[in-house]
Amino acid sequence: MALIRNYKEVLEQKVNEGKGVRVRWLISKPEGAPNFAMRLFTVEPGGYTPFHSHPWEHEVFILNGEGELVGENDTMPFKEGDAIFVKPLEYHQFKNTGDDDLRFICVIPIID
Amino acid sequence: MALIRNYKEVLEQKVNEGKGVRVRWLISKPEGAPNFAMRLFTVEPGGYTPFHSHPWEHEVFILNGEGELVGENDTMPFKEGDAIFVKPLEYHQFKNTGDDDLRFICVIPIID
Repeated sequence: MALIRNYKEVLEQKVNEGKGVRVRWLISKPEGAPNFAMRLFTVEPGGYTPFHSHPWEHEVFILNGEGELVGENDTMPFKEGDAIFVKPLEYHQFKNTGDDDLRFICVIPIID
Repeated sequence: MALIRNYKEVLEQKVNEGKGVRVRWLISKPEGAPNFAMRLFTVEPGGYTPFHSHPWEHEVFILNGEGELVGENDTMPFKEGDAIFVKPLEYHQFKNTGDDDLRFICVIPIID
């Protein structure tokens, strides 16, 4: 039987890196996901995720708000309705540059 | 360098199965995605995806609208903000039961 739950029903956790970032793990290993995990991030106005890189990719969809993606050599704006692909090992940081919360879906592979 | 593009910039294709279903492949193999693909589906009022099953899972996030997930033995309602996990081999069908377009993100593994 499929699992359906509203994102508001999922525990929201503070992310210790960056500033003003919270995460909800919507679908992941505990739910039986075999390959990839879907998370919902909220970044407060003025907040940002850590500037870092890792061996796995991000596939992101911007639900609300606007911001900037900071890379090693460039900074690119994004807004509601944008899809963002961050390649493995690519440095990246998501900054909220707007007046409202920035909310986005971010999918990563499950690595055992 | 990361890829950013609005979903409206992505070619929208008619899905031949089901009724009133269109899909945009936001991030997939052509964009360099190594593990999973992110698609955006639109289902018109009264429309539905095919009732079927396959060996791969779905991880879904409902962006707008409302509908019903039809399974082999049950039917469950869903609405905006819901996350849905359909397990591998599980029969499923997404029906739009509302008056507006139903739009959702659906992520699947890339199978070579």
